[in-house]
Amino acid sequence: MRTPLERFYPLIPAGGVGSRLWPLSRAVEPKFLLDLTGTGSSLLRSTYDRLVDLAPKGIMVVTGQAHAKAVTQQLSELRGSDLVLEPSPRDSAAAIGLACAILHERDPEAIIGSFAADHIIDPVEDFQDVVREAVHAAASGKIVTIGIEPTEPSTAFGYIKATQNLGLDHAPSALAVEQFVEKPDEATASSYVASGDYTWNAGMFVAPAALMLKHLEAKEPELYAGIMEIARAWDTPERDICMTRRWENLPKTAIDYAVAEPAAAAGDVAMVPGRFSWDDVGDFDAVARLNIEKSGDDLFVLGNKDNVISEDSTGIIVNNTNRKISVIGIEDIVIVDTADALLVTVRDDAQSVKNTVATLKEQGLNNLL
Amino acid sequence: MRTPLERFYPLIPAGGVGSRLWPLSRAVEPKFLLDLTGTGSSLLRSTYDRLVDLAPKGIMVVTGQAHAKAVTQQLSELRGSDLVLEPSPRDSAAAIGLACAILHERDPEAIIGSFAADHIIDPVEDFQDVVREAVHAAASGKIVTIGIEPTEPSTAFGYIKATQNLGLDHAPSALAVEQFVEKPDEATASSYVASGDYTWNAGMFVAPAALMLKHLEAKEPELYAGIMEIARAWDTPERDICMTRRWENLPKTAIDYAVAEPAAAAGDVAMVPGRFSWDDVGDFDAVARLNIEKSGDDLFVLGNKDNVISEDSTGIIVNNTNRKISVIGIEDIVIVDTADALLVTVRDDAQSVKNTVATLKEQGLNNLL
Repeated sequence: MRTPLERFYPLIPAGGVGSRLWPLSRAVEPKFLLDLTGTGSSLLRSTYDRLVDLAPKGIMVVTGQAHAKAVTQQLSELRGSDLVLEPSPRDSAAAIGLACAILHERDPEAIIGSFAADHIIDPVEDFQDVVREAVHAAASGKIVTIGIEPTEPSTAFGYIKATQNLGLDHAPSALAVEQFVEKPDEATASSYVASGDYTWNAGMFVAPAALMLKHLEAKEPELYAGIMEIARAWDTPERDICMTRRWENLPKTAIDYAVAEPAAAAGDVAMVPGRFSWDDVGDFDAVARLNIEKSGDDLFVLGNKDNVISEDSTGIIVNNTNRKISVIGIEDIVIVDTADALLVTVRDDAQSVKNTVATLKEQGLNNLL
Repeated sequence: MRTPLERFYPLIPAGGVGSRLWPLSRAVEPKFLLDLTGTGSSLLRSTYDRLVDLAPKGIMVVTGQAHAKAVTQQLSELRGSDLVLEPSPRDSAAAIGLACAILHERDPEAIIGSFAADHIIDPVEDFQDVVREAVHAAASGKIVTIGIEPTEPSTAFGYIKATQNLGLDHAPSALAVEQFVEKPDEATASSYVASGDYTWNAGMFVAPAALMLKHLEAKEPELYAGIMEIARAWDTPERDICMTRRWENLPKTAIDYAVAEPAAAAGDVAMVPGRFSWDDVGDFDAVARLNIEKSGDDLFVLGNKDNVISEDSTGIIVNNTNRKISVIGIEDIVIVDTADALLVTVRDDAQSVKNTVATLKEQGLNNLL
């Protein structure tokens, strides 16, 4: 009889451009490939490193074919059979569902854990303790989300409403989940935070692969049939041809709709509180905050610090060119200087970078995206 | 008997880097070679064009050898004998003094007019009227400065104290000058402006070459001897060798000390008010002001306008690269984007750019200066 931890297989869906981090993040070098805190590790590499102690049988990574080279360079220990390369984006239900199906094919008792590739979490030990608890809770037959204690009534995240403690062995803080809620408006978000019943849905969850697939089969039978066929071929010479034949026709839908929400309605979802500091580094205000807190520098330079001359300025400068940068007399500045594009804004307006990205799309300037 | 206007020879000392316009202005491409208002003409070319109607016998230009190619490209009609190339900077008394001496050698009755290469003046007709009046006043035996009506108690300019009207024919507004004053402190500047007796010294003056040389001989005999020797050789095959032999040993001093101040003390200086709008475009705040006034754009782009995406921002963006620039949520921004250096500041701090230039000098980064 194996313990739940011996049946645990983490997987990392590495997708999304992170367009509010333009012009640093690009289609060819998305957020998860970036080092946003000057540690020398990309967000993907750090995510992998946080999970490796919990993964006796390796970690599975799902990413776009365009990132195959960068991902294999950053994760040199990754086995080819643990790297799912999407020929095109088919949304999260296909990506996570296929990884689930492959792991279930290998081990019908597999407990999978899905962790986004582009979040910052600290300290690692606390994160691992929470994941271990979630694995134990999942072993009781639940899809277990890791809920993040809200620090503000954010409208950028979905919320999880949890109720009574499930009283599970080895998972003393696991609560029953009543409902997932979409990104709310500000008043609703405030009421959620005030109630104390809601946590942020950070997209991290741990679950028996079989339970995931059961809900997927019920809600998205066509998607289920496709990923099961690919999964059966995965560890055989038929992998590539089967992927080529089936992938493009998989329905596009999010894992939240395909699995999490119906599972919650069926009473199959639990929540373990994330007792660690978490940031999705959604924009340059977050990049500034994280780095300024850590370094104590009022003006943080992510990149070549020698290139910057500053006077009476605070905020963040990101540079990956050899250009000299002089900044004078601006508080909370955000300067992101790349070879072909420059962003100048202030931390309060960091979210508006998405408008620039929208404009570039309208102008058809895909080489800048 | 020639009229004063027939004896008039404008000269343009084209020197100075304009370091408060870094990183646009550089040692290799100083301010006078730049087009700061998007007209397609450099400041030097515009200066030349303002004077050409007044110059029956051509215009003389004095500049550093490093700028020979750019200057001759911009002023294709300039004769070689009217281009004085300084082998090294020896300050304004040597530069203007030599041009004076050459013109005096060619025409002992020459009336010279010296006009900085890097100011913006408008309208041209009013400027020309003022210069004509100054030429007539000069013909009466005066060094005639063109005084600029102060628009604020600036501490960036020297001031000219003028008194009674000289009652000259064809120069009805020419006043006697009592004194030149160095750049004053703010309180003094305020009292000057309040008194109504002071105008800004914009370094524009018209004078008989012989009178200039008389004062130069008295105050700087060594400099005088050197420039007279070069001037005698100028229109002969000995020009280059004589310049090479004598130039480096000329004393370095400013024309204000060498001529203007002693001449004022001797009662030889007059002032004609500059009845035109004038700007020395000393920093990017001035560049922004001039262009925003002219264009009516709150955010003016000097360079490739198609490269800029902006939102809730005012000020100026100067770009001479093909980089895309996004600016969001900053009032009075100044962004100057060049191939190897980037400046980000606000209009109120535009003067502080000189500190960046000082830092680059300290760091020995001459390739950026």
